[in-house]
Amino acid sequence: MKENDVHGGDTYSQKIRRDFSVNINPFGMPISVRDAAIKGVDAAVSYPDQECRELIQAISLAEGIPKSHILCGNGAADLIFGLVLAIRPKTALLLAPTFSEYENALCTVDCGCSYYVLKESEGFQLTERFLKVIEKKNPEVVFICNPNNPTGQTIKKELLAKILSVCEKKGIFCIVDECFNDFLENRENVSLKHLLCCSPHLIIIKAFTKIYGMAGLRLGYCLFGEEDLALKMKAVRQPWSVSAPAQFAGIAALKETGFVTQTRQFIYAEREFMLTELKSLQCQIFGSEANYIFFRWNEKKESLYELFLNHQILIRDCKNFRGLEQGYYRVAIKTREENREFLRVFRKIMKEG
Amino acid sequence: MKENDVHGGDTYSQKIRRDFSVNINPFGMPISVRDAAIKGVDAAVSYPDQECRELIQAISLAEGIPKSHILCGNGAADLIFGLVLAIRPKTALLLAPTFSEYENALCTVDCGCSYYVLKESEGFQLTERFLKVIEKKNPEVVFICNPNNPTGQTIKKELLAKILSVCEKKGIFCIVDECFNDFLENRENVSLKHLLCCSPHLIIIKAFTKIYGMAGLRLGYCLFGEEDLALKMKAVRQPWSVSAPAQFAGIAALKETGFVTQTRQFIYAEREFMLTELKSLQCQIFGSEANYIFFRWNEKKESLYELFLNHQILIRDCKNFRGLEQGYYRVAIKTREENREFLRVFRKIMKEG
Repeated sequence: MKENDVHGGDTYSQKIRRDFSVNINPFGMPISVRDAAIKGVDAAVSYPDQECRELIQAISLAEGIPKSHILCGNGAADLIFGLVLAIRPKTALLLAPTFSEYENALCTVDCGCSYYVLKESEGFQLTERFLKVIEKKNPEVVFICNPNNPTGQTIKKELLAKILSVCEKKGIFCIVDECFNDFLENRENVSLKHLLCCSPHLIIIKAFTKIYGMAGLRLGYCLFGEEDLALKMKAVRQPWSVSAPAQFAGIAALKETGFVTQTRQFIYAEREFMLTELKSLQCQIFGSEANYIFFRWNEKKESLYELFLNHQILIRDCKNFRGLEQGYYRVAIKTREENREFLRVFRKIMKEG
Repeated sequence: MKENDVHGGDTYSQKIRRDFSVNINPFGMPISVRDAAIKGVDAAVSYPDQECRELIQAISLAEGIPKSHILCGNGAADLIFGLVLAIRPKTALLLAPTFSEYENALCTVDCGCSYYVLKESEGFQLTERFLKVIEKKNPEVVFICNPNNPTGQTIKKELLAKILSVCEKKGIFCIVDECFNDFLENRENVSLKHLLCCSPHLIIIKAFTKIYGMAGLRLGYCLFGEEDLALKMKAVRQPWSVSAPAQFAGIAALKETGFVTQTRQFIYAEREFMLTELKSLQCQIFGSEANYIFFRWNEKKESLYELFLNHQILIRDCKNFRGLEQGYYRVAIKTREENREFLRVFRKIMKEG
């Protein structure tokens, strides 16, 4: 069941100099967020607010969504497991490849999963064919990751609206993971947030972890099309899932709008640089739009993952994603210096042939 | 389902000067734990170690239990929900009154709950009659809280061993919540830890939150009689449930053995003082052994909870515990100064009659 759940970021069981396997903001955690988290530690002798009142108030203002339609959790993964437990679907439709925790969560309630395999021949893009598959499979839940992980591709706005429309018509819960949305230049265009108000079956998952460089604090939230499911989900979860440091940090983070804009601009420029360089290194790129790049590299029989590991650099080997095999990799966009080092090592690997 | 899940500690929706409704170490968080949690904040730009390797190593040494029999969670409540999801029992036997999150967790998997009601006429003590009820009901899971919350009573060692023996004989999972065990003078005698090695159906839940004054950081752990259930539980949980500050703090906390000893000595002396005083205030005490006192006070028609709230003091109104009704309360043992203030206000309430 959990065979394919090895994620990136394991810098704990091996000596790693640079970690390109997780997609965290290269600017790290803003000072204001760090300071707030420390205030959270000082407040942590008491239980945290079960209701996350101040944090939800801040999210409500930032997102323009009513408070009763918001729920916070111990990272996005906690919310995925909570959502699945609240809905308890018997059938679900997932993309392949995509983030493996949807499937892992669905397994906990014995849900039967179908997979829509994204084709390499279509550049791993989701197409209108997906609509027919939803109609045909008629699952209780559809999970979409936008931009998708590991491909970094977004779904066309028109297609998204059609997917949601089919889901609403058929009463299918449409769970859209927008955890990497804040890194996109055209994020408003990609998000389904504007349709929440008229889509009772829409749920959007967002994370603080990546964009605010606070993965170790664990904080994410759900936006619900309807309040009922939020209440149902609350009922199946422990009362104190969000720590005091995470609540304090989250409130501070939402004030860092300049930081987020700078991040976006930086990622955009740096991605262009990285894409050009990677192409010159015989990587087949699949139009990455996020803060990570997904590519194929099968020049050699050897695993690029292992070759980088020899240099104490961690990249994400995507062979354990459902729908992929050996030869696909994902790397995060980091600082210019780190990216240059990554490219230097890559060139060395190529030369050593 | 969650109607009766109001816990203590809600200092967020009302103005509270003193909170006697939660049972946290009156000495607060040790400095070393605070410092470690702050180091955890600094490390929190990365994902926390999914496997909690260093923390589990430290727990293994402190508890004398093999690492593969230990699982950490985002507080004890997180572990309760995770355990229930891993076992997915159809039937469970619970005490009444007891901590309400067992029942809330069991509801998430549609488990049918039976209740063994602790009788006031027996001082809310668990008796040998419980053994016959287990035999008769033959549930898949038995939850025991030792010392029990809210009564603060421990279960006699001989009875505990008999309960476990019946459970093992019948293949019933025996989940023992020892979250308040570290506050007891005779904790070694009360714990079932020494029987873990020969009891595959025994699971012990422990928390860092109370004894180390770190409720807002969220950290607890399970000790398993057998490794299989630990693996099963891991498979139904999100990978990153324990934050970096919690992992760092936990490792530091386990070195604070002197702090724990001092706490125990202080609680013992202070409880004796409080018990004497409360008796003089017409409280009927039920032999509390923990860091909180459970009592009945029905001198007046009014709620003692409300009367204290008028003075901005929060106590735990136990009327929403299954098996109890209006007139039962629980107060934490805090510092001498705080306890004196509590008693002063109590006397004032009595006088104002």
